Amino acid sequence: MRVAVLAHDRFPDRAKTAVGILRYADDDVVAVLDRATAGTTVADHVPDLAGDATPVVERVADAPAFDALVIGIAPIGGGFEESWRPDVRGAIERGADVVAGLHYFLAEDAEFAALAAEHGVDLRDVRKPPADLGVAEGVARDLDVEVVLTVGTDCSTGKMTTSLELLEAAREAGIDAGFVPTGQTGIMIAGWGIPIDRTVSDFTNGAVERMLKRRAEDHDLLVVEGQGSIVHPAYSAVTCGILHGAMPDHLVLCHEAGRAVVHGYDSFTLPDPGRIADRYLALAEAVTPTTLLGGALNTAHLDAEAAEAAISEYERAIDAPAVDPVRDGAGTLVEQL
Amino acid sequence: MRVAVLAHDRFPDRAKTAVGILRYADDDVVAVLDRATAGTTVADHVPDLAGDATPVVERVADAPAFDALVIGIAPIGGGFEESWRPDVRGAIERGADVVAGLHYFLAEDAEFAALAAEHGVDLRDVRKPPADLGVAEGVARDLDVEVVLTVGTDCSTGKMTTSLELLEAAREAGIDAGFVPTGQTGIMIAGWGIPIDRTVSDFTNGAVERMLKRRAEDHDLLVVEGQGSIVHPAYSAVTCGILHGAMPDHLVLCHEAGRAVVHGYDSFTLPDPGRIADRYLALAEAVTPTTLLGGALNTAHLDAEAAEAAISEYERAIDAPAVDPVRDGAGTLVEQL
Repeated sequence: MRVAVLAHDRFPDRAKTAVGILRYADDDVVAVLDRATAGTTVADHVPDLAGDATPVVERVADAPAFDALVIGIAPIGGGFEESWRPDVRGAIERGADVVAGLHYFLAEDAEFAALAAEHGVDLRDVRKPPADLGVAEGVARDLDVEVVLTVGTDCSTGKMTTSLELLEAAREAGIDAGFVPTGQTGIMIAGWGIPIDRTVSDFTNGAVERMLKRRAEDHDLLVVEGQGSIVHPAYSAVTCGILHGAMPDHLVLCHEAGRAVVHGYDSFTLPDPGRIADRYLALAEAVTPTTLLGGALNTAHLDAEAAEAAISEYERAIDAPAVDPVRDGAGTLVEQL
Repeated sequence: MRVAVLAHDRFPDRAKTAVGILRYADDDVVAVLDRATAGTTVADHVPDLAGDATPVVERVADAPAFDALVIGIAPIGGGFEESWRPDVRGAIERGADVVAGLHYFLAEDAEFAALAAEHGVDLRDVRKPPADLGVAEGVARDLDVEVVLTVGTDCSTGKMTTSLELLEAAREAGIDAGFVPTGQTGIMIAGWGIPIDRTVSDFTNGAVERMLKRRAEDHDLLVVEGQGSIVHPAYSAVTCGILHGAMPDHLVLCHEAGRAVVHGYDSFTLPDPGRIADRYLALAEAVTPTTLLGGALNTAHLDAEAAEAAISEYERAIDAPAVDPVRDGAGTLVEQL
């Protein structure tokens, strides 16, 4: 499928959906829409996609032919920004589907719904959970599958990226591994999944458990994508629900080198990563035995030497092996299994 | 308002909504509906309501005149049991409103909706949250009000009861105290509130924060009703969201004497209450300084001597003063403020 990815004013650092799709989806990305950096290419912004000549364009009219427009930004709160409206309208008028992971559902927007009907295209809101969720039965720990959960010191620390790198490394090591996506980008990439942050809060743990039950028989290892952080002032409910719904055998703690305060909540100091790891383990172990498999450190803003030093420091802080999965892959973590 | 309370097969031990309304609501309860214990009175079942001659009846037709039927049971999962249908139908046909706190919304049941329209009565589903919730801003700790949150070792350990006893004791001590209900029974009793277990999971913390912001200016002390438990395999997401959304100054840990496994999840052993208290404090302190004010122990199934011994043992386990708020009130806890 040929897709254009909307990432206005936020590409690449605050456009994790866009970058995730560029890096991991099977789709053919024909253009990134970002009015702030129009005229450049993806390779100018994302070092590990060095050869990627995909153009960054100002608006949908400047993009080559595509089958779907993907909203590639997930602003705090998940709202729709009105400045995106001309591009969404333009995509529909060009006959393309629109795929979004916002809390605001495009299919319930009167203008978009009418226009989509007129042009015969789909508006796909992947953040809409199934209607028949329920409370957890507490059975995830009894499933015949090994479970690794990526958790974070904060949001936007690389949990989805780490999960997908773990998946790839496990498969390269000959392990029959599956991916359990819990957020909009992971769902867009995997083509299935439940958006855990959008479920009824009482069913958070249950929604994760349901995904594990459905995939446990198909694989020997499941890598569950975590969300948020257990010490996050706004998102901790979702994080805790995933932790106890998945009842993982192992955790991988994701962190960004140098991050000292909660992203977007600057008055909240992040505890030391080692203390955060201890809190995750104590909380997980209340329902099932769990170990810290290792750490994943996002060092994208550091040079190679500084990155190596940061990874060593992080290993000491959490007392476990660590990698930057984008630089090095996650093979070292898979070897710990 | 005259109310009949439906509690079939579960009164009183598994009918916490019914007992909460009997004990704390301003409503005049004219009958409890329980086919299993019909022919008795409330006083036969609830020791601290010793003088209460309210009859327990088999069906709605046997109840004296009333203005509203309240569904006084909250089964795991929050579903509607079809065996209750004749009583709900009968109440509507007698011209009474129906008040429910289920995940299943009576107003969306085709038969009840049609019948209610025909008879001009209201179907009030208090578990339906407002449509305009959002993510937390992380500001609860900055509000000019002292906040006490009741937390539990498990669900059904007396968090709502303890909250209401704390409220009463605080008011008796001359403190301007307000109640922040988070569950269906508390909302039915207080006449306002957001059902936190029914919000979008991403908005759990934010919904609690919103209630605190709305009430902070009106009071010097807010008592927030907790839900579930941080070590519960199914409900921990909601618990964690309340903890970080409320950012309490103090916690009161509620426990039932002798409870050794998670209620309804018998294969899960409860950790020692002292360890659970430590986990709550560690998790809360990641966002704001918090202390353990004390403990509340449900000793309803013990005689006075055994209750006293259990409370002493509980005080040693959590290293803080404890009471059974139903036996003794919560004055001892309020003195710690």
